[in-house]
Amino acid sequence: MTSIREVAKIAGVSPATVSRVMNGTANVDEKKRQRVLEAIEKTGFRPNELARALYKKSSRMIGVIVPDIENPFFSELSKAVEEQAYRTGYRILLCNSDDDPQKEMMNIQMLVQMKADGIIITTNCDSTSRVLGDCPIPVVVVDRKLKGESGTAFIEADHYKGGRLAARHLVECGCKNIVCLQGPLAYSSGRQRYQGYLDICEKYGLKEQHVNCTYDYEAGRRAAGELMRRFPDTDGIIACNDMVAISVYKELTARGRRIPEEIQLIGFDDIKFSRMCTPELTTVSQPIREMGSLAAGIIIRHVEGEEFLQENVFDVKLVERDTTRRKKEQKK
Amino acid sequence: MTSIREVAKIAGVSPATVSRVMNGTANVDEKKRQRVLEAIEKTGFRPNELARALYKKSSRMIGVIVPDIENPFFSELSKAVEEQAYRTGYRILLCNSDDDPQKEMMNIQMLVQMKADGIIITTNCDSTSRVLGDCPIPVVVVDRKLKGESGTAFIEADHYKGGRLAARHLVECGCKNIVCLQGPLAYSSGRQRYQGYLDICEKYGLKEQHVNCTYDYEAGRRAAGELMRRFPDTDGIIACNDMVAISVYKELTARGRRIPEEIQLIGFDDIKFSRMCTPELTTVSQPIREMGSLAAGIIIRHVEGEEFLQENVFDVKLVERDTTRRKKEQKK
Repeated sequence: MTSIREVAKIAGVSPATVSRVMNGTANVDEKKRQRVLEAIEKTGFRPNELARALYKKSSRMIGVIVPDIENPFFSELSKAVEEQAYRTGYRILLCNSDDDPQKEMMNIQMLVQMKADGIIITTNCDSTSRVLGDCPIPVVVVDRKLKGESGTAFIEADHYKGGRLAARHLVECGCKNIVCLQGPLAYSSGRQRYQGYLDICEKYGLKEQHVNCTYDYEAGRRAAGELMRRFPDTDGIIACNDMVAISVYKELTARGRRIPEEIQLIGFDDIKFSRMCTPELTTVSQPIREMGSLAAGIIIRHVEGEEFLQENVFDVKLVERDTTRRKKEQKK
Repeated sequence: MTSIREVAKIAGVSPATVSRVMNGTANVDEKKRQRVLEAIEKTGFRPNELARALYKKSSRMIGVIVPDIENPFFSELSKAVEEQAYRTGYRILLCNSDDDPQKEMMNIQMLVQMKADGIIITTNCDSTSRVLGDCPIPVVVVDRKLKGESGTAFIEADHYKGGRLAARHLVECGCKNIVCLQGPLAYSSGRQRYQGYLDICEKYGLKEQHVNCTYDYEAGRRAAGELMRRFPDTDGIIACNDMVAISVYKELTARGRRIPEEIQLIGFDDIKFSRMCTPELTTVSQPIREMGSLAAGIIIRHVEGEEFLQENVFDVKLVERDTTRRKKEQKK
């Protein structure tokens, strides 16, 4: 069996660097990373066998608890977790919580009993987040910043910046009457994106207008209906995520409204469907793959006794596609 | 702790019936099923604790290996497996194979080593399917009918009927020049759907026309381009699945072709996105939830020493939405 030292020697790096590349968490110079990957391939190095020998106490299983695996955000996230886990010889135990606090609690208990190496969770329940601080195994909370001391680490995107980017983009597209489909204020994502929108409204002297919504497609359809009743003259909509933007598009076109000609629309997340659907959605992209990869990486680093950051905030960026149109393009 | 006998007594059924309802696999009279579910709720009966006591040798884990968890067909299937497993106190270990034979083999070995109670797999690899027959734990193959004696049981939809339904529907919509985006002939799904299309062509004296495609979005875009070059006068397209139909819609509208006015389009699967996108897709629906549920049920029945069917073929049905239009509606 090839050893990590042999791989390191061939790649001309330290064994610690090989380990870092395998864990995928720390910054490694891209040239070095390539050399390590080539050395791994050349030697047929099997990291899981090594890890198995080194960390016998580890069950090599990471629990992943998501509200809904059918929601593309979570299937993309889970896939990224799985890929990172697989590369390092771990497996994922996938649990679907249906946003049910009881099911979440049972899943957490079960994962602890099964001696999972850690839990990666996105929870919408206050009761669950309270118990996470006392969990005997490491917990990485994704896409939520929980109050208090819950969890070992958390990962989220810069929602505040995202809210600002979305609102400013609609301003740049000439919108005067922007409505925000506001995500739940119980979550940091909802609060911070809304705050970003609010600050842009203030800056440009626009009226704050919002409709409450949750992050699923059905809620989006209902919220779009309410929006059309309450704000029939809107010319720009910030959806709380891409799934909701997709449902807003459907509701509005069903009412004969044209997007982006009459009403411009922006989502959040940049799930793959946002560019598969027609028209493709303008959205605020959060790096879902990197977030999932890091979540797995943190659990693995914890198992291996390595350091990791507790707070991990990822940058977001505006992705302009077909549901918005900048002013200069409108004049063409 | 409540026993299964107490639940049975309250519901006025036999303990075996309670077990059947919990496993969700055998036919149970709907009224009885409701009584059992109420009794379970009333007593706070915890099937997993019971099962744990009864089947100590079971690891209570079911391995699920899919080519791509981001593909909605597989995330919907996995969710159904998870829900059925959870109800009966099992967990799923989710593996993403990326259609890579080596990754599939490693996943299978890993699941065997972890003493999973069984494996639910959709594989596209001949080499993998050959080893499944010798797998020491039960294997349920979903959405593929493998050659030879691979696997413990298999589950698929009636693809031949689906192919016929799709083609006949386009005929009824007035299409004269139908092109079939043919799924891979290596899979029963691809072969049988194509055969169904072929038989309808023969019956109605239509010319057979096809373009090869695989089941993913990117392949769909390429195939749509080829289709437009080779068959510019087509008036009806049978996509090999909904993801491909979504990409065909995008390619065709980008070329200024109108669906369904000029070209009618039908998908296959009835994934949730087929009704979320605009326009909603006409498609051939396969009961994805029921298939996933049965897959988990078979593994659990195997653990519990109960009988199950080896061959399970589910019916399909036509779902008419916005990408096709019947002749009489066209005249309106």
